[in-house]
Order: sequence, then structure tokens, then C-alpha cells
Amino acid sequence: MIDPPTESTETHPGEIGLVRWKDYVHTGAFTFESGEKIPGFTLRYETYGKLNPQKDNAILICHALSGDHHCAGIHNLNDKKQGWWNNMIGPGKPIDTNKYFIICSNCLGGCQGSTGPKSINPETGNPYNMDFPLVSIRDMVRSQYLLLREGLGVESIYAVIGGSMGGMQVLQWGIDYPDFVRKLIPMATTARQNAQAIAFNEVGRLAVMQDPEWQNGAYGDGKGPNVGLAVARMMAHITYLSDAGLEEKFGRDKVKPNEARSQFDAEFQVESYLRYQGQSFISRFDANSYLYLTKALDRFDLFGESGQLEDRVKAIRARTLVVAFKSDWLFPPAQNRAIVHALLRCGCEASYAELDLTLGHDSFLVNAPDLYQLVHNFLNA
Amino acid sequence: MIDPPTESTETHPGEIGLVRWKDYVHTGAFTFESGEKIPGFTLRYETYGKLNPQKDNAILICHALSGDHHCAGIHNLNDKKQGWWNNMIGPGKPIDTNKYFIICSNCLGGCQGSTGPKSINPETGNPYNMDFPLVSIRDMVRSQYLLLREGLGVESIYAVIGGSMGGMQVLQWGIDYPDFVRKLIPMATTARQNAQAIAFNEVGRLAVMQDPEWQNGAYGDGKGPNVGLAVARMMAHITYLSDAGLEEKFGRDKVKPNEARSQFDAEFQVESYLRYQGQSFISRFDANSYLYLTKALDRFDLFGESGQLEDRVKAIRARTLVVAFKSDWLFPPAQNRAIVHALLRCGCEASYAELDLTLGHDSFLVNAPDLYQLVHNFLNA
Repeated sequence: MIDPPTESTETHPGEIGLVRWKDYVHTGAFTFESGEKIPGFTLRYETYGKLNPQKDNAILICHALSGDHHCAGIHNLNDKKQGWWNNMIGPGKPIDTNKYFIICSNCLGGCQGSTGPKSINPETGNPYNMDFPLVSIRDMVRSQYLLLREGLGVESIYAVIGGSMGGMQVLQWGIDYPDFVRKLIPMATTARQNAQAIAFNEVGRLAVMQDPEWQNGAYGDGKGPNVGLAVARMMAHITYLSDAGLEEKFGRDKVKPNEARSQFDAEFQVESYLRYQGQSFISRFDANSYLYLTKALDRFDLFGESGQLEDRVKAIRARTLVVAFKSDWLFPPAQNRAIVHALLRCGCEASYAELDLTLGHDSFLVNAPDLYQLVHNFLNA
Repeated sequence: MIDPPTESTETHPGEIGLVRWKDYVHTGAFTFESGEKIPGFTLRYETYGKLNPQKDNAILICHALSGDHHCAGIHNLNDKKQGWWNNMIGPGKPIDTNKYFIICSNCLGGCQGSTGPKSINPETGNPYNMDFPLVSIRDMVRSQYLLLREGLGVESIYAVIGGSMGGMQVLQWGIDYPDFVRKLIPMATTARQNAQAIAFNEVGRLAVMQDPEWQNGAYGDGKGPNVGLAVARMMAHITYLSDAGLEEKFGRDKVKPNEARSQFDAEFQVESYLRYQGQSFISRFDANSYLYLTKALDRFDLFGESGQLEDRVKAIRARTLVVAFKSDWLFPPAQNRAIVHALLRCGCEASYAELDLTLGHDSFLVNAPDLYQLVHNFLNA
């Protein structure tokens, strides 16, 4: 099923302005890496800019765990919240909508419009919940491929770009569709989850699954393990930042005295900030999706059985720029460098940049001219 | 009330062997730093070795958040679990029971026999629960002072030694009782909790307080927010270790296939290990104590209003050896160095050692000859 690209409307010079999402509905069965099947799926996506007549200017953006398809522009004129990478994507910006046709879809297994655990299983009329198949990074990439090929008629991609879980997808894209993609920019990512990252995800999952409201995943609409999901999110959020970044932003600053009603209410600003992060997350994220997506992260392992990263990345034909951040302790520079080293050992064209931004893992999202220049130059080289 | 020192019995050469705990019961009112009072308190403690006639060979050990008074020896001949610092304390060991009289007490606010939230308030006949006063590191130290002076008749301490929360107490000892203590060894500690450490504690507290079984702290005996407390402990436990240490110990090793009954059961060894840590913690720790003790950590701030660490540590007269661990990211070396620098700027006698152990924050607990030698030499210099 083919949807025309979403048209964007410039409301302010230099900004994408109004955008609308679309749904790609794949009506054939989809078999997961695990061997399990669903009878079809939907990917919600947005596009910005125009596909050129040669159909060779498409750029795919892959979002991180808690991200979605809305990576640039606004949804209505009163919308104060722009897409999550609006600073990076737009007319004249590093990922230039005047030049490129940009696509971003909510990932398979997600909960922002794409098919995931909370979607209705057409065979039962009920939500999949925990009957949803285990989704892998590879499954996410294949569903995106179907969107691009069958949904948008794109015959090749100029670049795939993304950070964190998005970066894993970028690598998987290069491996699974080597002739379809010309450039890759994985950022703040890893070729496999290490023990510490798995450990944090596991604690988050247990917080969700042990919340009595989880109900083995069969909580109803508007209900759910909100307490557990908020705890999981708050903990994860700490891992996306950095010691120095938190110290710079909050230090030991206190909330206003009248805001703390008891001695165990939020006393420090950082506590208040985290509570807000937890609460806002539960209003937009499905707890079962959180389980499935974190599991996809934990199972991601390009080293594979052989323990040789080269065995996987040698398939890559695209030019690759890996971007790491010194303050990222979730997927630290060494894990990013390992990708570049493996690519170089395989004779692939790969570059590495390590930026000294202080925000930690989430540095790929911040306003950083150094990062903009890297992305701009690599795309236009 | 004076209890005679616990006698220890050597069952094996080189080991302390059987030890018994005792209770020091302070019958007078105790006023907390907050101004709140309790009518009296108990500290549970153990001692090893003998106080010499000059009464100048006492060493006080201060335990960390989840530790207790049982730091060496065994409680019965079938006891397979030795005290938490048995590798460090014993005949001929770095903290030598042939030479020193060693004391360790469960901290005020704790739950292993000392007065804390789950103790009975004699004025109501019910547990204090959340009516227990906010306890500070300073309150813990003052209650230890009363144990030593009034309970054990000790007139001075040769050394105070402890890691993490114990290290905070060590510093506070030097500041509050400068003429009572000759040597200090704070390890893996900080002069103030920074934003990241507060953030992790806050998420742990919320996991506890939002567990429906918490009941505003008034859960009954044998009940409680076990789910929340286990989540808090699992998360905290990750922060006590290190990326490299976890990778070395677990990597991506999987549990045996038949141990995982569903796709979200523990799949990786690190998950199984953390689940065990969480479960064993709830059997020995009180959830309200966890709230109070983490709050004491978060409020600890020797920089104070002035922002000048020197203003506090200039009171210290003891010779101080600060020990930090390169892989400790909870209280990283820089935070330990800051203590030494402030001491040196004040003209105090201070040394610093930074050990390259890989276990992270908990490195002070491991079998490490370098650490043993440091402690031994500093005590016997």
C-alpha cells in the first residue's frame, strides 16, 4: 500500500513547520527473526522534503528507545514541542530538507502508531500484549525496508542515521541491505549490549513486570504498571545523562521549600526533574512496548556466536561515520571505536569522531555545532 | 549501660572465629541534628581483640549503607558467611586483632539491631516507621561516640576506618571529635553526594514508596514493599560495580536454557545475579531504613553553605589516608581527591592512594593485597 509522502509546510523560514504523520499498512504476513508471524503490520511515519526524480536522495532516520516517527517540525500551529531532532533536520540544517527526502518511522514493536504489543491482533480481536513476538533490531530494519520499497517506492537510500537503538538499526541496515544504502551514521551506539547495559534494562523490566498493575501484560486501556514504568524510565534517564552533566545542570540545588510537603518529597532539583521525566513518560509510552524494545536492545549482538564483529560488518558496503561522545557511559567511546576498527579491518570505508560534549549518551540530541558540521560534511562529501 | 567487650574465639589459626554481638542501650534522650528527639537508643555492635591497659588501641569500623556490625568472624560453627570485612580484619590481617581492639556497630537508623524506623517507640508502643527522625551521618557518629565513651569506656580511638557511607562517617568523626581520634581511613567516599548519586537514591526511594505494600511506611512485621525494595537494591547494586567488572564476570553469558521459563525471565547471567541480589536483600533489610539511610547519604555535604570544604575539614587533627578506586563511578577518584586537597590546603596531614581495582565502588571489600598493605602500613606507621 502506497501513501504519498507527507507534505511539509514552512511556517517560519529555516523551519520545517507543519507536518503530518502517515501510516504504511503492510497487509502480508510478517515473519520475525524468531520464526513467529503476525498477519500484517502498520508503520507510522513522517517524511520531510521531496524525493527527487532520480529517487536517490532519501535519508532514513532511526529513533532511539523512547523516540518516535516525529523527528522534525510541529503537528499544529499551537504545538510548542517540535520533533525530537528538529535542531538537526530542516531547511538549511545539517540534514537538509531542501536537498534530501527524509523518512522516519516509529519502530515495529513500538507504541506510537506502529504495530506493537498494544495493537489489536486481528486473529483474536484483542491486543497482542505478551503474545506479541519477540522483536529484534533486525525485524525493525526489515519492516522499515518494506515501508521504503513497497510503501514509498524508494529504490535506494542515500543515508541511514540514528543514535543509540537507532544506531544499532543503522548498523543492521548496512549489513542486511548493503546494496541499498550508501552512507551510514551510527551515533552513541554499540555492536552489542554489554552486561551493565543489560543489567539496567533488566531492573527496569522487573520494575514494570512486578508492578501489580502489570497483570501479566493484560492491563486494559488507560491502565497499566505506571509506577513500575516511571521507575524504569527514571533509572534509564540517569544512564542517558552524565555525572558532569547532572552536576552542571542541578548540582545540589534544592526545590523551593514550599514544594516539599514531607521529608521524603523531592528535596533536590534533580529529584524533581526525574519525577517529571517518569510521569511524562507514562503518558506517552506503553509498558509492554518498553519490555519488548529493551529486550531487543539486550539481544542485539553483532559479535554473534563467533565473537568476531568482522564476521557481520564485513557485509557493509556503505561509507560509515561512527560518532561517539566522551561523556557517554552507557555506550562509551570504546564500544563505538570497536565498530570502526572492525570495519577498517574488513577494508570498509569508515571514519570515527569522538565529541567532547558533556551531556552523556543523549549528547547526539543536543544543540552542538561540532556535531552539525560532522553530519553536514559527511552527507555532502 | 556498659557491656563488656565481646570475646572472640579463634577456631582456625589466622581467623577470628566465633563472635557474638552485644547491645549498647543508651537510656537518655538523644537529640538528632534535626532537633527531633527519641527517648533513648540501642546500638548493636561487635568487638574483636582486646582493649589494652593504656586504652589507646581501639579501632572503629564504620559500615556502608547495606552493611552491619558483623564485619568479621562467624556467628556459629556452621555459619558459612563470615563478617563483611573478614578478609581485612583478624589475627595477623591488615586490621590486626592481635594488636587492636576493633569495634563495629550497626548504625543509628539501621535495621540490624540498632534503633531505627522499625524499632518500637516506647512512647506509643508501636514502631516509629515514618515518625522516626531524619537521621544524619553526624547523628550516626554521635551515637557511636556515646557507645565508645559510655558503653565501652574508650577514651580515644586509634583509627576510624570505613568505605562509602562508612567513609562519610570517618570524615565526620575527624571533624566532630578531633581530639578523640588519631588516624582516619575513608575509602571510596565523597565529601558530598553529587546530583547523579542523589538521582539513583531517589529512584530507589520512589520504587519503595510507590510500592502499594509500603502503606506510608506502616507495613506490618513480615510484610512490606518487597518489590520496590528489591528494585531499589538491584539498581543500586549496579552502581556499586563497574562496567569492566560486570563485563569480566558476566559478559553476555546466558543462564541455562531450562532455567528461563518465558521470554522475559532471566536470560543472561547478569540478570539472574541481580535478581538474587534483590531477593536476598529484602530478607535482611527494612524498607523504611533504606529510605532513611539513603536520605542521610543525600544530605551529607561537607562543603556546606559556604561551598568551601576547607571550612569543615580544617577541624581534623588526625592523620588521614584517603583511598579511592579508579573503577568507582559512584564516588569516583576526583571526589576522593577533593577531600585530600582540602585537607592539605588546611595544613592537615593527609595522603591519597588510588588503586586500580576493577570492581568499582565495592572494590574496598575485595581481596586486594595492595589495599591490605596500604591499610597495614598506615596503621603501623
